[in-house]
Amino acid sequence: MEEKAPMTMKDIAREFGISVATVSRALKDSPRISEERRRAIQQFAREHNFYPNAIGEALRHSRVMPQRVIGVIVPEFTHYYFSSILTGIEEAAAARGYRIMVALSGEQYEREAQICDNFHRFKVCGVIVSQAKDTKNYDHYQKLIDAGVPIVFYDRICTGVNASRVVVDDYMGAMNAVNYLIESGCKRIAFYGGPLQLEISKNRFNGYKDALLSHGMQIDESIVQVCDNRAEAEELTPKLMAMDNPPDGYFAVNDDTAIGVLYTVKHAGFKVPEEVQICGFTNGQRAVACDPMLTTVEQRGHRVGEEAATILMDKVEGLSPLDKVEKHVVKTRLVVRGTTK
Amino acid sequence: MEEKAPMTMKDIAREFGISVATVSRALKDSPRISEERRRAIQQFAREHNFYPNAIGEALRHSRVMPQRVIGVIVPEFTHYYFSSILTGIEEAAAARGYRIMVALSGEQYEREAQICDNFHRFKVCGVIVSQAKDTKNYDHYQKLIDAGVPIVFYDRICTGVNASRVVVDDYMGAMNAVNYLIESGCKRIAFYGGPLQLEISKNRFNGYKDALLSHGMQIDESIVQVCDNRAEAEELTPKLMAMDNPPDGYFAVNDDTAIGVLYTVKHAGFKVPEEVQICGFTNGQRAVACDPMLTTVEQRGHRVGEEAATILMDKVEGLSPLDKVEKHVVKTRLVVRGTTK
Repeated sequence: MEEKAPMTMKDIAREFGISVATVSRALKDSPRISEERRRAIQQFAREHNFYPNAIGEALRHSRVMPQRVIGVIVPEFTHYYFSSILTGIEEAAAARGYRIMVALSGEQYEREAQICDNFHRFKVCGVIVSQAKDTKNYDHYQKLIDAGVPIVFYDRICTGVNASRVVVDDYMGAMNAVNYLIESGCKRIAFYGGPLQLEISKNRFNGYKDALLSHGMQIDESIVQVCDNRAEAEELTPKLMAMDNPPDGYFAVNDDTAIGVLYTVKHAGFKVPEEVQICGFTNGQRAVACDPMLTTVEQRGHRVGEEAATILMDKVEGLSPLDKVEKHVVKTRLVVRGTTK
Repeated sequence: MEEKAPMTMKDIAREFGISVATVSRALKDSPRISEERRRAIQQFAREHNFYPNAIGEALRHSRVMPQRVIGVIVPEFTHYYFSSILTGIEEAAAARGYRIMVALSGEQYEREAQICDNFHRFKVCGVIVSQAKDTKNYDHYQKLIDAGVPIVFYDRICTGVNASRVVVDDYMGAMNAVNYLIESGCKRIAFYGGPLQLEISKNRFNGYKDALLSHGMQIDESIVQVCDNRAEAEELTPKLMAMDNPPDGYFAVNDDTAIGVLYTVKHAGFKVPEEVQICGFTNGQRAVACDPMLTTVEQRGHRVGEEAATILMDKVEGLSPLDKVEKHVVKTRLVVRGTTK
């Protein structure tokens, strides 16, 4: 595993008898080069440890320059959405010659602040983070920004600092889902969401509200509930189903909660989807394990991760100004399965 | 984010008016110190950026020493078992002042070899890895070992090199599960597993076999099948259920496969668990999302990750000789739910 002399694009061009521009296009996967040729050039580059960008090459031969290591903070690895985002980040980073250092906040502010400090001391080139649920103080982020370390938020963005972010279109995702429930015949749709002070909950609630209003339906506060996990759903749902006028549709803010609704109403003797229709939000592994399978809003975590990493690397490489705040919104997609008609 | 003078255990001991040994025990979470006091000491240490070991402290003030960065290779982040292992690794590493650099092999040998090379160039202090499914050449591991970089394998161990490893007791896990099925009345139990050349499949098959034999039952090759995902299970199970003498029990090598069996037999009109009993292996999020919930062998990924990280850090710090191969086996646990009587 010795370090060989670095290979340049010129060397590759010479090897194949083509221009440097063609090599560059092939390495960027440009459709202007035939797939076969792209593959051959990429494979050759890999086999000769060619680094796909100039920075990567410079870095490889430097031990002192700031490292191309991205610090990534994840609230929970075992949460399907977060692990799909991490996959997107890793793949986008690796493709541009970056490495990722990963740390777990465990949803704790204290741990998150410690990690930011630790990453900064390690001289990461930037940080990608989804804020812990209990974070209310943002100094640890501000310190990084002040030190010129770019931050990109994903999923749970921080409104306390002015930084780039990638989120999904929670509003449209919720609106489309609730529109679908209404068009499938639901007359009375319950909303189970997170606390409304969270940006994400507010947006999903607004999508729900606007779907109802646009169909001339009223908001009934008694079936709009703060409820975002299965245990809560199993406790709350029997109360709603015992109403004189129980809901015939449920829109839940994640799959776990939706599955809590599903089994509670099924075991109480209601038919799904004939009598009660249910829609979740995530589209993780649970969504196809339940019976019937869950209609849900696909959050496209992989894409969120890719975009977050790309924004960050563009800032690190000076392709986008450090002080320009990028706000990307990834489109969701409604996946219709067995819990709706 | 300036560097303050480092805090020592002595400083903490002085602050609390206790001995250094007591501080050390509290930081190691020893039950010999009251929980309240442990918490107070740990919180104080955290607040003052105390690093729990001498190496951590030395490192913190060094910019040139080999870094305490562990390279972790994961085949797939979105696989529940792997993400729970990663959680265990991260937590154990962070507790001892190590950072983790994470890369995704995507089950590809080429990518895995590239990552090993990349980690080595970055001078990680060690590598924790689960081998990609298609890896058949082990030079990339051997190069690291030859360079004095310790490797610890988890889950899919590599038999081609002599390195430390942490696995679960696949044999005992399978035997206990099949014993349980037999004791719950199953007379004819099918086995769905991976290809028998994999260590892990072989061990689980042997556990199945020995459970049957110890109860005086015969192995029937027609219901021992290579089948390790849901799609395969949905295709294969109707054939088994159409036999003159169909299985009344299924032991599947993972939850995904078990769920494929569950829905196939349910939708064919069989009652679970009255007529057919099913047991999986993993205990991921799917296992509680299906209906009825799945009886399964819990793999304890968090513990596997912790042990792998601990073995590695002990080697890095010279607490265990580099050339001593550690082989840890983490005990599984049968979790009984609704798919068995």
